[in-house]
Amino acid sequence: MIPEFRVALIGQGFMGKAHSNAYCQAGHFFDLPYKIRRRVICGRDAAALAAMADRWGWEETSTDWRATVERPDIDAVDISLPNHMHASVAIAAAQAGKIVMCEKPLAMSVAEARAMTEAARKLPTMVWFNYRRVPAIAFARQLIDDGRLGRVFHYNAAYKQQWGADNSRPPSWKMDPALAGSGVGDDLLTHLLDTALYLNGPMTRTVAIRRIFAANRTVDDAVVAIVEFANGSAGTFEATRFGIGCKNQNAFEMHAAGGMLRFNLERLNHLEFLDASEPSTEQGLRDLLVTDMKHPIFGSFWRPGHIIGYEHTFIAALAQFLDCLSRGEDFHPNFSDGLAVQQALDAIQRSAGTGQWTAIDQG
Amino acid sequence: MIPEFRVALIGQGFMGKAHSNAYCQAGHFFDLPYKIRRRVICGRDAAALAAMADRWGWEETSTDWRATVERPDIDAVDISLPNHMHASVAIAAAQAGKIVMCEKPLAMSVAEARAMTEAARKLPTMVWFNYRRVPAIAFARQLIDDGRLGRVFHYNAAYKQQWGADNSRPPSWKMDPALAGSGVGDDLLTHLLDTALYLNGPMTRTVAIRRIFAANRTVDDAVVAIVEFANGSAGTFEATRFGIGCKNQNAFEMHAAGGMLRFNLERLNHLEFLDASEPSTEQGLRDLLVTDMKHPIFGSFWRPGHIIGYEHTFIAALAQFLDCLSRGEDFHPNFSDGLAVQQALDAIQRSAGTGQWTAIDQG
Amino acid sequence: MIPEFRVALIGQGFMGKAHSNAYCQAGHFFDLPYKIRRRVICGRDAAALAAMADRWGWEETSTDWRATVERPDIDAVDISLPNHMHASVAIAAAQAGKIVMCEKPLAMSVAEARAMTEAARKLPTMVWFNYRRVPAIAFARQLIDDGRLGRVFHYNAAYKQQWGADNSRPPSWKMDPALAGSGVGDDLLTHLLDTALYLNGPMTRTVAIRRIFAANRTVDDAVVAIVEFANGSAGTFEATRFGIGCKNQNAFEMHAAGGMLRFNLERLNHLEFLDASEPSTEQGLRDLLVTDMKHPIFGSFWRPGHIIGYEHTFIAALAQFLDCLSRGEDFHPNFSDGLAVQQALDAIQRSAGTGQWTAIDQG
Amino acid sequence: MIPEFRVALIGQGFMGKAHSNAYCQAGHFFDLPYKIRRRVICGRDAAALAAMADRWGWEETSTDWRATVERPDIDAVDISLPNHMHASVAIAAAQAGKIVMCEKPLAMSVAEARAMTEAARKLPTMVWFNYRRVPAIAFARQLIDDGRLGRVFHYNAAYKQQWGADNSRPPSWKMDPALAGSGVGDDLLTHLLDTALYLNGPMTRTVAIRRIFAANRTVDDAVVAIVEFANGSAGTFEATRFGIGCKNQNAFEMHAAGGMLRFNLERLNHLEFLDASEPSTEQGLRDLLVTDMKHPIFGSFWRPGHIIGYEHTFIAALAQFLDCLSRGEDFHPNFSDGLAVQQALDAIQRSAGTGQWTAIDQG
Repeated sequence: MIPEFRVALIGQGFMGKAHSNAYCQAGHFFDLPYKIRRRVICGRDAAALAAMADRWGWEETSTDWRATVERPDIDAVDISLPNHMHASVAIAAAQAGKIVMCEKPLAMSVAEARAMTEAARKLPTMVWFNYRRVPAIAFARQLIDDGRLGRVFHYNAAYKQQWGADNSRPPSWKMDPALAGSGVGDDLLTHLLDTALYLNGPMTRTVAIRRIFAANRTVDDAVVAIVEFANGSAGTFEATRFGIGCKNQNAFEMHAAGGMLRFNLERLNHLEFLDASEPSTEQGLRDLLVTDMKHPIFGSFWRPGHIIGYEHTFIAALAQFLDCLSRGEDFHPNFSDGLAVQQALDAIQRSAGTGQWTAIDQG
Repeated sequence: MIPEFRVALIGQGFMGKAHSNAYCQAGHFFDLPYKIRRRVICGRDAAALAAMADRWGWEETSTDWRATVERPDIDAVDISLPNHMHASVAIAAAQAGKIVMCEKPLAMSVAEARAMTEAARKLPTMVWFNYRRVPAIAFARQLIDDGRLGRVFHYNAAYKQQWGADNSRPPSWKMDPALAGSGVGDDLLTHLLDTALYLNGPMTRTVAIRRIFAANRTVDDAVVAIVEFANGSAGTFEATRFGIGCKNQNAFEMHAAGGMLRFNLERLNHLEFLDASEPSTEQGLRDLLVTDMKHPIFGSFWRPGHIIGYEHTFIAALAQFLDCLSRGEDFHPNFSDGLAVQQALDAIQRSAGTGQWTAIDQG
Repeated sequence: MIPEFRVALIGQGFMGKAHSNAYCQAGHFFDLPYKIRRRVICGRDAAALAAMADRWGWEETSTDWRATVERPDIDAVDISLPNHMHASVAIAAAQAGKIVMCEKPLAMSVAEARAMTEAARKLPTMVWFNYRRVPAIAFARQLIDDGRLGRVFHYNAAYKQQWGADNSRPPSWKMDPALAGSGVGDDLLTHLLDTALYLNGPMTRTVAIRRIFAANRTVDDAVVAIVEFANGSAGTFEATRFGIGCKNQNAFEMHAAGGMLRFNLERLNHLEFLDASEPSTEQGLRDLLVTDMKHPIFGSFWRPGHIIGYEHTFIAALAQFLDCLSRGEDFHPNFSDGLAVQQALDAIQRSAGTGQWTAIDQG
Repeated sequence: MIPEFRVALIGQGFMGKAHSNAYCQAGHFFDLPYKIRRRVICGRDAAALAAMADRWGWEETSTDWRATVERPDIDAVDISLPNHMHASVAIAAAQAGKIVMCEKPLAMSVAEARAMTEAARKLPTMVWFNYRRVPAIAFARQLIDDGRLGRVFHYNAAYKQQWGADNSRPPSWKMDPALAGSGVGDDLLTHLLDTALYLNGPMTRTVAIRRIFAANRTVDDAVVAIVEFANGSAGTFEATRFGIGCKNQNAFEMHAAGGMLRFNLERLNHLEFLDASEPSTEQGLRDLLVTDMKHPIFGSFWRPGHIIGYEHTFIAALAQFLDCLSRGEDFHPNFSDGLAVQQALDAIQRSAGTGQWTAIDQG
C-alpha cells in the first residue's frame, strides 16, 4: 500500500478550482507514489465552500485557516489565497511542520519571501509556477540542457492580457494593492521571471517603467523592463493588462548561437525551434507540436497530436512534486526559487520608481 | 436531490480512459442534472480492469458484458470497444431498455447501424463523435446558423495522421479488418463525415479511391473522395495514416458567399474566420482564439486564453447529453446521426471499389 | 560583344505588362548572354499600344501580328494573347523560324497543343508557367532531386481565388468560352498541373467534377479532381474562382516517406518543409524563408530576407531561358511540357463531363 | 511634354542598385509628372562604375562627386554612400541648389543632420526610409488616421538580423565606426525609429543598453531601449545583428484602445489587424494580405494576391516624391523627419553610454 498525502487547500477561488482539479486528476494520469486525500478545504464563505467541497470531493470544510494548518491529520498545506495572505499562512504551516505549497507569486515582498523560505527551510516546498510543466517549456529546457542553444544573446519575454481595459469586469482582489501588491507585476510579470530563471538563469540588473492606463486605478497596468542576465544576454520583459488583442499571450523568444526558440502560452502545445547548425538553406523556425510520447510530460496524458490545456500544467506539477517528495529530492520551483523571482520583481519595481539601473540580488 | 445516472462502461482501452475521464470531470465543470455513478467497468482482462477501476473510481468490474448490460442497477451502457463489437452490445443494451452510448464509428456497416438505430429507436442514444463539442466547431456551427456563411461553394476536409508509416508500432485491432472494418475509413474518415454533416448538411453522391501504402497491410491507409452536398457545394475528403508531417491534423475549410472558415484539430482552440461582408481592404482570415466566456462550451472550463484540450470534448459531450436527457430532448449526434455517417462512408467505400459515382442515401 | 535577342511581344494586356517588365529587368539582375532588344509590341488598340510602347521602351508598335512574326529583324515571338489566339500565332511564328514563347496555357486543346509542339519541334520554345521560377518551388524541386522526400504518398494542390463571386468586375475575355476555353481550368488549374508535373511527375488517370456557381456564366467557376500519379501517389486538385477568402492561394502539399512540403503563392518567399529523418521530438514544419544567397534564383536579386514578388518569377524564367538558349540546352517548361499540361487538363475536363475515370495520356 | 527630372546618383553599392532600380521602374508602374533621366552615376571605382552605368542605363559616370553635384544639367542629387559621407555631399548639393535625396540614416550625428536640414531648408528633400511605402505600413497609417486605433498603450518594435554572428562574411564599411557610426543603431534602429515616428508620433525620453557580442568588433551588435512617447504609450525598441533565426525581421506591434496591429518585413505584404470594436467572440488577429486594388500603393503594381517585394518600396517612395514635387507639396520623410530620427537615436545612444534616462528632443 502506498502512503497517503493528505492535503488542506486554503482558498476557494479560481486557483482553488485549478488546484482541486489537479488533486483529482494527478492519479488518473500518473502513477503516484502517494494516495492523495483531499482532506479539507478552507475559506471564508461557508456556503460556497460546501458547494465546492461537494463538487471537488473535499472531505471536510473549514473557515479557520489557523486551526486547519495545525491539524495533525494533514501532511500538506496548499495556499491559493490572495497574495497578501501567503506569508502568514505559509509560515504558520511551516511552523506546524507541514509541507507547504503556495500559489505564485510567493509573497508580497522580498522580506516576506525570505521569511517564508527561512521558516520552511527544512520542509518540502513548492510554488505553483505551473508553466514550467508546459511540455513545450520543459522541452525547451531539455534542448538548452543538451547544449543545443549555446551562448544566449537575447531573451525577450512578454505577457499580454487585455482585460485591464474592460470596465465591465467585476472588481477583484487583484485590483487592490493591499491584497495583490503591485498589480501586473505580481500577477503576470512573475510568471515571465520564473520561466526566464528556469531557461536563462540568474539576472544581474534592470531598468524599468510602469504604467497605470486606467483612470482611478491603484495597481500597475503595465511594466516594461530591460534586464541583464548573468550569462551576458540582453533581456526585455513586458507585462501588461492593456495588451489589446491578446487574451493570454505569455510569450518568450530566445536568440542564441545554436538557434532560436519561441513560445506563446495561447498555443501551449507548440514550441518553435530553429537549429542554427543546419545548412543555411534549411534553417527555418520549426513548429514543433510538443505532443510526442517522447516529449517530456505529454506522454502521461494522451496520444500524439491530442493536445492538452491549461489545467494539465497543474496536474503535472503536482505529480512531479509528489515524485520528488517520495524520492527525497528537491522539487523546483520551491520557496527559494520563488524568492529569486521576488528579488527580480523587487528590483524591477524599485527601478520603475527611481528610474535608476538597479542591481538584482539573487543570493 | 438530483437523480443518479448509473453507467456501465464496456471497454478498457484508450477510449475507455477518455470516457472514464469524462465521467469524473463532467460534474466538476458543469452543473449536471444527474449525479453520475461510475457503476461498473467491463472488459476481458480482469487484472488490468481492476487497476483501471481503481484508478478511475469504477465501483465494480465485470468480464461479462452480456450480464452487465442487463443489470437492473444501471441506467446507461457506454460502449468503447473495437468496432466489430458495437452492434451486438448496443442491441443487447437497447433490448434491456438501457440508454446507449457508443464510440464512433457507430457500426461496421449500414446494416448494422440501421439495426442498432432500430433497436434503440425509443431510447436516448449518443455517438461519441466528440469533435462536435470542440468550442471552435460549435462556434462555427453558430456562425452558420446565424446566416453568416450563406451559400456554401466548397467544403474541404482532411484528416491526416502519420503513424501508418511507423513500423515500430505494436499491432492494434485497428489494423485487423475483422475488428476494425476498413481502416482509415472507419477511424478517421468518419470523424470528417460527422463534422461535415453537422456543418454542411447531407451529401448526395461521391467518387473515391483508397490506398494501402504499407506492405502486408489489409486495411486502408488512405481514402480520397469527391463528395457532392445537397446544398450544391463541392466537397473533398481525404483521410490518411500516411500524412507524413501531421500528428493529428483533422482539418476543414469552407468557402461560402458570406466568408470562409478554417479549422485544424491540432489547434483546437482556434477557428479561422473571414467575414466577406467587411470592406475588401479589411478582409483577412481572423485567428479566433475560441476561449471567450461567450463562446459555446468554453466558458464552463477556464478563463479566456487558458486553453483546453482533447479530453474536454468528451466532458462537454457528456454534459450536454445529460442535459438533453433531463429535458427530454434529442441529443445529437445520436444513433440516427451515426447511421448517416455510415451511409456516407459506405457509399465512399463502394465507389472506391467500383470506380463509379455512387449515390449517398441519407434517408 | 554579346549578341542581341530581338523580341516581338504579341499582346498588350496584363500579361503583356508582366512580360515587358521581364524584358526590362532581366539584364539588371542577371548576367545575360544576350542583349535584349524590345523590338516591337503588337496589339489591336493602336493608341493604347503607343502608350505601352512608350512606357516600357518598345522600339516599334504594330497592329498586324502576321506581318510581325515574319519580320526578319526579330529573333523571338512572345505570345501574351487570349488563349484562343495562341495556336495560330505560335504556328505562324514557328513557320517563320522564330523562337516561340507562349503564355500559359499553351493551347485551347490537346490537338492545338500538339500542332504547336509539332510546328516548333526544331525551335527553342518556352511556356510562361512562371511559377517554376518561384525560388521556393525551385528549392522544393532541389530537395526532391536530392532524394529528401523519397516515395510520395499524397500530393494535394489547390488554386483558390475569389473574384468569380464579384459581380462588379468588368467583363473579361476570361469569361468567354470562345476566347478562354474552359474557365478556371485553363486559367488556374493549368498552373497547378504544371507545378505537379514538375515536382511529382506524370499522371495516369483522373475523375473530376466542375461547377458553375454564378448565374448566366458559361465558363467553369470550379474544377475538383482526384488524380493518380505514375509514382503511385494519390493526388487531389481543386481550382476555383469561388474560394471566398483567398486572393491568390496557389498551394500544394506533399506527404512523402522523407517528409512534407507545403507552399502557398500568397507567401511565395516561403517553403514549409518537414524532414522526417529528424528525431520525432524535433520534427516540425519549418518555415523556410527562401531568400538565402544559396537558394536557387533568389541570390540574383537582393539580400537574405529582402523578399521578392510576383514579377520576379517572370524575370528569372526569361533569364534562364536565355541562358539555356545560349548553351543550346532545352529549357523547361517548353511546348512539350505545355502539351503534357494540356493532356492532363483534357482528361480532367472529359471526366467532369462523363463522370468516368479517364486515362491521362502523357505520351 | 512633361519636364525632365535629371538625377545624379552618388554611390555604387547595394543601395545604389536599389535606387537605380527605382529610377528604372517608377515610370513603368506610376504615371509620373516627370521624365526621369538617369544622368550620371558617381563613385570611386571607375571600372565597376562603367559596368553599373551600362547595366542600369546611366548616361554618364563620374569619380568626382564635388563636380557632379554642381553640374548645371542635373536637378537632383541622390546620395547612397556610406553614412560618413552623407553630410558633406548633401550640404554641397544643397549649396548648389539641387534637390537632395539621401539614404538613411540621414547623418552621423544630430549636429550633422541639423546642418544638412538647415542647408537644404528651402529645397525639396527626401530620406530613403523606404519602409513607409510598404503598402501594409501605409495602410496601418491609414487605419490610425481614420481613428481605428485610438489611444495607444504599447508600441513594440524590433529589427532582428543574424549576420553579425557570421564570421565568414567579407568586411564591410558597416563594421567601421568611422564610416558607419554606431553599427546596428544607425543601420537597423533608425528604420524602427522612422516607422515609429510615422505611426506613433514623437518620443519624449529613453533608457537603453547596447551590446557588442562579437570579439574584436568596434560597432554595436545590438541596442535595446525603452522609449516613452508623447502620446503616453510605452515603447520598446530592439535592434540586433545577433537575432539568430531572423533573416530580416523588421517588426512592430501596437496595442491600442481600438485594436492591435502587427507587422513583419519578412512578410511585407501582410498586416495583422484586430478590431477591438468587434464582439468579443469575433475578435481575432486578421491576416490582411495588403494587395487589394484599394489598398494604398499596391494597386499601381499588380493584381490582388500577386505580391510585391523589397524593391517596390523604393519605387513607390520615388514616385510619391516626384508627385509631391510636381504639386509643390512637402514629401515625408524629408530631412526634418530624418533629423527627428537622428535625435531619437542620439538620445538612445547617449543613454546606453550613461545608463541614465535621457530626454529625446524632437524640436
